[in-house]
Amino acid sequence: MLAKKLKKTDIKVGELATGQALTVPIYKLIPDEISGPSVYIQANVHGAEVQGNAVIFQLLKQLEQSHLNSVVTLVPLANPMGINQKSGEFTLGRFDPITGVNWNREYLEHEFDIEVWYLKHQHETDDVLIAKFRDKLLSNCVERLENPWGTSTGKRLATELQKMGHQADIVLDLHTGPKSCKHLYCPEYSLKDAGFFSIPYTLVIPNDFAGAMDEAMFCPWWKLSDVAKQFGRSLKVAVNAFTMELASQERIDLEDAKVDADGIMAYLSHRKVFDNNRQPLDMPRYGCLLKNYKKFHAPHAGMVEYLAELGKPLSADKPLVSLLRMDRYGTDEELQYLSLPTRSVPILHFASAAVHQGTELYKVMTDVFEIR
Amino acid sequence: MLAKKLKKTDIKVGELATGQALTVPIYKLIPDEISGPSVYIQANVHGAEVQGNAVIFQLLKQLEQSHLNSVVTLVPLANPMGINQKSGEFTLGRFDPITGVNWNREYLEHEFDIEVWYLKHQHETDDVLIAKFRDKLLSNCVERLENPWGTSTGKRLATELQKMGHQADIVLDLHTGPKSCKHLYCPEYSLKDAGFFSIPYTLVIPNDFAGAMDEAMFCPWWKLSDVAKQFGRSLKVAVNAFTMELASQERIDLEDAKVDADGIMAYLSHRKVFDNNRQPLDMPRYGCLLKNYKKFHAPHAGMVEYLAELGKPLSADKPLVSLLRMDRYGTDEELQYLSLPTRSVPILHFASAAVHQGTELYKVMTDVFEIR
Amino acid sequence: MLAKKLKKTDIKVGELATGQALTVPIYKLIPDEISGPSVYIQANVHGAEVQGNAVIFQLLKQLEQSHLNSVVTLVPLANPMGINQKSGEFTLGRFDPITGVNWNREYLEHEFDIEVWYLKHQHETDDVLIAKFRDKLLSNCVERLENPWGTSTGKRLATELQKMGHQADIVLDLHTGPKSCKHLYCPEYSLKDAGFFSIPYTLVIPNDFAGAMDEAMFCPWWKLSDVAKQFGRSLKVAVNAFTMELASQERIDLEDAKVDADGIMAYLSHRKVFDNNRQPLDMPRYGCLLKNYKKFHAPHAGMVEYLAELGKPLSADKPLVSLLRMDRYGTDEELQYLSLPTRSVPILHFASAAVHQGTELYKVMTDVFEIR
Amino acid sequence: MLAKKLKKTDIKVGELATGQALTVPIYKLIPDEISGPSVYIQANVHGAEVQGNAVIFQLLKQLEQSHLNSVVTLVPLANPMGINQKSGEFTLGRFDPITGVNWNREYLEHEFDIEVWYLKHQHETDDVLIAKFRDKLLSNCVERLENPWGTSTGKRLATELQKMGHQADIVLDLHTGPKSCKHLYCPEYSLKDAGFFSIPYTLVIPNDFAGAMDEAMFCPWWKLSDVAKQFGRSLKVAVNAFTMELASQERIDLEDAKVDADGIMAYLSHRKVFDNNRQPLDMPRYGCLLKNYKKFHAPHAGMVEYLAELGKPLSADKPLVSLLRMDRYGTDEELQYLSLPTRSVPILHFASAAVHQGTELYKVMTDVFEIR
Repeated sequence: MLAKKLKKTDIKVGELATGQALTVPIYKLIPDEISGPSVYIQANVHGAEVQGNAVIFQLLKQLEQSHLNSVVTLVPLANPMGINQKSGEFTLGRFDPITGVNWNREYLEHEFDIEVWYLKHQHETDDVLIAKFRDKLLSNCVERLENPWGTSTGKRLATELQKMGHQADIVLDLHTGPKSCKHLYCPEYSLKDAGFFSIPYTLVIPNDFAGAMDEAMFCPWWKLSDVAKQFGRSLKVAVNAFTMELASQERIDLEDAKVDADGIMAYLSHRKVFDNNRQPLDMPRYGCLLKNYKKFHAPHAGMVEYLAELGKPLSADKPLVSLLRMDRYGTDEELQYLSLPTRSVPILHFASAAVHQGTELYKVMTDVFEIR
Repeated sequence: MLAKKLKKTDIKVGELATGQALTVPIYKLIPDEISGPSVYIQANVHGAEVQGNAVIFQLLKQLEQSHLNSVVTLVPLANPMGINQKSGEFTLGRFDPITGVNWNREYLEHEFDIEVWYLKHQHETDDVLIAKFRDKLLSNCVERLENPWGTSTGKRLATELQKMGHQADIVLDLHTGPKSCKHLYCPEYSLKDAGFFSIPYTLVIPNDFAGAMDEAMFCPWWKLSDVAKQFGRSLKVAVNAFTMELASQERIDLEDAKVDADGIMAYLSHRKVFDNNRQPLDMPRYGCLLKNYKKFHAPHAGMVEYLAELGKPLSADKPLVSLLRMDRYGTDEELQYLSLPTRSVPILHFASAAVHQGTELYKVMTDVFEIR
Repeated sequence: MLAKKLKKTDIKVGELATGQALTVPIYKLIPDEISGPSVYIQANVHGAEVQGNAVIFQLLKQLEQSHLNSVVTLVPLANPMGINQKSGEFTLGRFDPITGVNWNREYLEHEFDIEVWYLKHQHETDDVLIAKFRDKLLSNCVERLENPWGTSTGKRLATELQKMGHQADIVLDLHTGPKSCKHLYCPEYSLKDAGFFSIPYTLVIPNDFAGAMDEAMFCPWWKLSDVAKQFGRSLKVAVNAFTMELASQERIDLEDAKVDADGIMAYLSHRKVFDNNRQPLDMPRYGCLLKNYKKFHAPHAGMVEYLAELGKPLSADKPLVSLLRMDRYGTDEELQYLSLPTRSVPILHFASAAVHQGTELYKVMTDVFEIR
Repeated sequence: MLAKKLKKTDIKVGELATGQALTVPIYKLIPDEISGPSVYIQANVHGAEVQGNAVIFQLLKQLEQSHLNSVVTLVPLANPMGINQKSGEFTLGRFDPITGVNWNREYLEHEFDIEVWYLKHQHETDDVLIAKFRDKLLSNCVERLENPWGTSTGKRLATELQKMGHQADIVLDLHTGPKSCKHLYCPEYSLKDAGFFSIPYTLVIPNDFAGAMDEAMFCPWWKLSDVAKQFGRSLKVAVNAFTMELASQERIDLEDAKVDADGIMAYLSHRKVFDNNRQPLDMPRYGCLLKNYKKFHAPHAGMVEYLAELGKPLSADKPLVSLLRMDRYGTDEELQYLSLPTRSVPILHFASAAVHQGTELYKVMTDVFEIR
């Protein structure tokens, strides 16, 4: 039985060749009285990154027991085509199998001139300004969906999700890495919020739209705030949006999902989404600017043993990987140990042990600082 | 036996997991005396687009018999990983199967400030200026390849090809569409050149870098020319680059390849690459601005009969496709005929007859004009 | 509006990771009085082989206008997972993407001892014997579906279809080749029936189960008939089953579908499925024993031009394909013409123009005879 | 520098569409005097199963230091096409991406009548009989490779490997499971040999050819021995062949590879392949008849948490997996725990956490016994 305040619906986000509708389940918790910021949480936009579904499960278990002040919308299994696309034993869910386009790069970039828009609406109160700006974002989404020349499969999905996200004040997009430790993408203006989640590493990101959900959510609001400031008005960025990378893909762990649900509850508690006071986990947290987040590509092909532990600092003289070349046994190249040019914290590594030259082997944080 | 002036080498563009080198064959024709512009022609960067190899075959047969004035470099089979990647019976060669990145969007965008560079070198003669600018482009490529953090598989391949391309004055990149009639991508400044090729439809493209080879070749030169003009100097765009779409993928047709080789020979003759006078085919040719090249996405899923003939004008009341829905037999939706909102010339359509909602069904030219 | 006698249902044949049911539409025509043999026709078990759906469309249009004597069950879009699985622009629908198992090799082989069964039931009249045997086949299917250890995805789909097929007297499985002319798989005992379909080439197949639908349908009945004969009883093979290969995959052609629907109607008319008299197309028809149906594998890799026309006799001195090797330009291997060791009729060829060594290039009939 | 007695060659096993040769490295150790049985070890026939390469690395390190009595042939990276085939981040190396055929089901089944052959050669001494039988097996392989209609890509690779295998007395084929504990496929007649390897679980297999390398190696010899016995002659099975499953795919672990190399060295020592005495690891070992090795298929789709630990006995009341259905939150189906109908030892499980209905979730041993 659904709790009284929990409402389940489905939205249609596409249609498969056989005619079957692609649908996504939407769980909505609506309090009797609304006083807090609205929340939107989605999971599994990349098909193999399933753990967010377990986190939503654990969140629902807790939210159903809470005295809510806000509308909370939870969207697990957000990309049915990506989740159901297998190639061999694995989920080929990172990109549209037809076009290669990353499912998380299809959100609409709002390209209207925000300065012009602001000047036209600057006489409004903050609340009205924000409401009208939100309407503008929503109507841009609708326009894209109703293009008479049609919309691509990926853009349709992304825009349907985006429409729901734009209606919220707090947006969480739950992802995972390939083989990964937990980390958070956090916009610079929101860095203090990183201290609430149960996540040790945070990437601090600038106001650049690169196609992802979190950026689609905060970029226009951040720009609006900047424009207002330029004209002498102090307008808080009205929306907070984060991408959470919940360890490795192709993994469901209900107990660990509870840990991350607890972190999210701590943040939502801080934001007065519900009444109970929930404290964040006491743990060290570290940050890194996005520009210092480095990819290391395989300088040669081979069989890889991933030696560097994820989430542990690695000095420049310690090996990151060993590279086995059984086509070169008996030569200097039969087994090589590779290191990075600098001290780092390895955050994620490639999922396969056999790599072509140029494969992205590791992503590492450099110039890491403590967040307090 | 290779003709005396034809030299074959191989370049290594990558390495597969087993250690096997990925190599690309390079055929170079070097005349005793060089008086004409150098030429670079590559084919098959997208793995399924094989017909360019047959065109290079036919070109070599003719060039070997010509009195050359220029160095001509011909690179068939330019993307071994893309060509060899099968998925079912088809070549999955459009994007890196690991990352989804389109192989033809990985060329280096030269991001240095061309105005600053020009001001520093404006005292040079045209020839020296051009030589130094070429060196700058080449050294940017080398820098990318020597990045201590490595380079991705696709960027390595693209940059190795780009290095060869930057050394030429005329660059042709031979592609095909999925199911397609022949068409040409031609930069606006070079439109009169479209009249030489055996190709009826031309897309006129602006000076925007979107990652493709032709753009990588001409964009910096076009910008340099614009900057010079801004400072009162008339500097011709030093490089001409085109992408030729030679009908459909997964098709080798040696006779038709001869037709396209003849068109290329006509252009090279006009540019004095060799001595014989070769006339272009007498045929009507049409153009369309890139902004008027429209994609039509499937508004619904279904089984598609592609009704509109490629390369033939289609009025807005004529059906483009029929869409069969055997899950809806007995309803109004069992068979629908779809039309476009405007008159057009269909240039290419999707390769499969079963489509999801949002699949790009057709690309069509609108506002077509005759090129004279 | 559905015609009065046409009933649509859906059956569930599986479930995708997101929980979505995999369903298949079933169209059933039920006459007021049943005097003729029941008919089961399915299409699109291989995902790219879509033309059978168009044939079912054209059949329904005709059957709805006919005075039926039989129950006719039509199942288009029979393999939703296969149809919806794309890899690049093409439908990767020939095998389960997880296991590689061909979707058309998963039908249940009935392994019980038919001789023992016959001896136990030989006292029954033909009608009762047939009904009990049919029940036995159905209960074997049910048993497989209810295995407490579960059943594989492919076996579940196949067995659900097989259950429907076993209830019919006439079974047609509509397929296509890759690039193919039309041909029919026909069991030896049923060869005269080949003269009704609009199909020029027929493969005459023996009583060996290799996993396909047609074999799953007729093999046990054929064996039963053989066993009865062994014990001196003449028992007609009670079921007729055919696989029709309706030209090429990834193609919908409604007009051509009408031609094949007409052929099927001619056969059904002959079998008294409906009252109108429908004559088969007057055309030459040829046969070939399955053991004389030969695969030709690429002796070398390369780019292929498919020279031999499908459905036209080819003498041993005529080229089947040319093989272009642009890595070998300037040598004897740059362009080779390949022929077969014997006279043949090419029936189908590979779908891609770039092949590895060993790729199945063509399937050809040898020792072809006329069917009268 | 290669050790004096180590010889490296390459064999060509195919050719890719671009013309590139598919080659496999062969390492051969040849002693000055040969008194022991010859050994053939291959690894990585399934592309994602890379750990065998590390085991061959560790074996070579030890064999180079040993006083050998036998020819030892080691073949890492045995399937270049399978190893290099990526789909997303993972190696799609279990089956031919074109045909779906499992790379380990393409070995030649010797279909000649062994009884007839034996009667013709029974007058020979054991040694001559064995040598002639070996020649027969080899000539069958050659015949397959030289078929004038060509051979498929997979059969060519398999037969080239099989030719090398048939020349040895001891054959090891190194594989891994998806997520797996170590286990061994061992023919029944050879069960005592299982006690030498560092592997806790052994599947005891009968004399049935199902297409795998180990079966291709021992089946004909086992049959020959049976036929001889039938005619009153005691002839030992001349060849021992095993498939070793070295834990999980997509994993290189050099230290663990040493453990398995040690086990192999213990067996080779027992067989007098070299002089040093190497003892097997003292550990409990368990067996299970192949018919008692059970697959459990997902009864429903969903997100899976794999709860049962691999290699640990599991009672029937303990959960194997939990199945999360976020499309059913708030119902009884939101989270289900699944158990097996019987006590078992889980040996391997599926690699992905999102499964369709029917996916093979676990393979488990039942009726396990201790091997002494």
